[in-house]
Amino acid sequence: MGGDFGPSVTLPACQAFLQAHPQAELILVGRAEALQSAAAWPRCTIVAATEVVEMDDPVEVALRRKKDSSMRVAISQVKPADDGLAPADACVSAGNTGALMAVSRYLLKTLEGIDRPAIATVMPNQKDGYTTVLDLGANVDCGPEHLLQFAVMGSALVAAVQGKDNPTVGLLNIGEEAIKGSETIKRAGELLRSVAEAGHVNFFGNVEGNDIFKGTTDIVVCDGFVGNIVLKASEGLAGMLSSFIKQEFTRNFATKLAAIVALPVLNQFKKRVDHRRYNGAALLGLRGLVFKSHGSADAFAFEQALNRAYDAARNRLLDRVHDRILETLQALPTAAGSDNQVQVVTTA
Amino acid sequence: MGGDFGPSVTLPACQAFLQAHPQAELILVGRAEALQSAAAWPRCTIVAATEVVEMDDPVEVALRRKKDSSMRVAISQVKPADDGLAPADACVSAGNTGALMAVSRYLLKTLEGIDRPAIATVMPNQKDGYTTVLDLGANVDCGPEHLLQFAVMGSALVAAVQGKDNPTVGLLNIGEEAIKGSETIKRAGELLRSVAEAGHVNFFGNVEGNDIFKGTTDIVVCDGFVGNIVLKASEGLAGMLSSFIKQEFTRNFATKLAAIVALPVLNQFKKRVDHRRYNGAALLGLRGLVFKSHGSADAFAFEQALNRAYDAARNRLLDRVHDRILETLQALPTAAGSDNQVQVVTTA
Repeated sequence: MGGDFGPSVTLPACQAFLQAHPQAELILVGRAEALQSAAAWPRCTIVAATEVVEMDDPVEVALRRKKDSSMRVAISQVKPADDGLAPADACVSAGNTGALMAVSRYLLKTLEGIDRPAIATVMPNQKDGYTTVLDLGANVDCGPEHLLQFAVMGSALVAAVQGKDNPTVGLLNIGEEAIKGSETIKRAGELLRSVAEAGHVNFFGNVEGNDIFKGTTDIVVCDGFVGNIVLKASEGLAGMLSSFIKQEFTRNFATKLAAIVALPVLNQFKKRVDHRRYNGAALLGLRGLVFKSHGSADAFAFEQALNRAYDAARNRLLDRVHDRILETLQALPTAAGSDNQVQVVTTA
Repeated sequence: MGGDFGPSVTLPACQAFLQAHPQAELILVGRAEALQSAAAWPRCTIVAATEVVEMDDPVEVALRRKKDSSMRVAISQVKPADDGLAPADACVSAGNTGALMAVSRYLLKTLEGIDRPAIATVMPNQKDGYTTVLDLGANVDCGPEHLLQFAVMGSALVAAVQGKDNPTVGLLNIGEEAIKGSETIKRAGELLRSVAEAGHVNFFGNVEGNDIFKGTTDIVVCDGFVGNIVLKASEGLAGMLSSFIKQEFTRNFATKLAAIVALPVLNQFKKRVDHRRYNGAALLGLRGLVFKSHGSADAFAFEQALNRAYDAARNRLLDRVHDRILETLQALPTAAGSDNQVQVVTTA
């Protein structure tokens, strides 16, 4: 029901997804009348919900008032019952990010060893690959141990979805030297170096803003404030450049003629940097897989978010995050590590 | 002497600058043998310095060891003597940013009412104008009062250089609502709203990363950690996109043919987003004008940095920053404001 366009985008995407994945099953959650066209689809179940979290609803409304919202009912599909089984392996929503994170956290709880869930997405890089960046806005203020947890969760994500067993992690900073940055960043660097020595994170060191697009490391870790601003600034810059190219090619008769000749090349370029291909951010660190589609996604983009969630579920992302975080925390020799270790033992 | 190319770039830029500005005078500071080709230029004086701060010299070396460095001697040219007059109105360097800021701060001191100098630069925006962004890396951790000071200094800069008397200021955040962001950002928003009510800063409110390139406000204020990462990420993204365009147009015979036809349009686009045009960041808040050129600047780019410094000096940027900051601090009704007010009175 979520996103800027609701079922007019999500339903065609779901249909294409089901056709592309003959093993997949979908549970569609929302207002029954909005989803009735999907009632006859194979491998598809409809679960009715009477309310919808609007894109501008405050988190409190999603959390406390709309208890039968499609968002909440969808998230509850990935919550294991007493027998340990959940109706669904992953949940995808194009709804309000703040509400999705808050309701997911409330219903699913965080994995042991994780203080705060994070939002991870991929950005294209110069190596024609993807750089996974987290956190993108779930956590405004982060301590060093949170950045360490993000590194571990990001490693599990890349291992699961991209099949890289030992992906490299960079710590986003304003210089490459270990002495650069705030106290939090320096301490996070120390924590990452110590777990890297124990073989638990493939820590590359500090990286700078341009390294995201250079593809210096597979994963770039930062707090949610910086991550969100970098993501949005990148969207803004890409948007500006693409509108400038369009303006130049439509300036007059001669440039329009040039545009016709250049069109196949420009389309190839456009396809290569098409942000819709990267749609589908993972909410990591919860006891269930939840993926967030961009609110403005079209059917193609929403289908990519479904694909991402499907790949993550098939490749046991949840178990991998769980295992990696416990292994890493047990390897931490420091005070912060022992605190976590005790916590892990008591909650395990 | 600074930057990646030294006098082979800076000398031709200086010559072009002198030719373009018949009223301007230059003082060139550096190793005498490196600058001898400029000895015969009109309106040009050479001041010898025996040492050079290297691009990878630690700040301590620039500050404590190389006391006769070209950087240090150049900065001292803008320091007023006992009669209140300085040999130069502005200093431009392509050297090591950290060293330039540290030596400038040590030699010149900060203006009254300014706790920390900031680095400001312009980025192009969708309105075919510039967005001035600060701080870009001088201050890793900022309190609310520092962000307020950046807003005031940025306003003075835009008023002086772009002739906009009452430029708008946005506070970089992860959402538009006043309740978003860290405690520091929220408090900075409160301070900015209170001085805006008194008519001292034209505060627009929170802006997001994409607003830098949309041109939502004339000025975007952030701490140096975020600003530096956004700047470098933008450089990285622009570099990646431009290399992708080049790759697509050189892929095969047909695309190369298309490139020939599209070349005038592509060149027009390239010119429009040419980062060299925006070269020359201002170090604001010091008792003297210092401008920083990108280390990788070519002669065209370095000349823009000279132009920027020249415009700032002609339009009395220093006095404007000084006047604005005192007016604004006197208007602050809060505890933070009164502290500053007392400080201003005692040091005035």
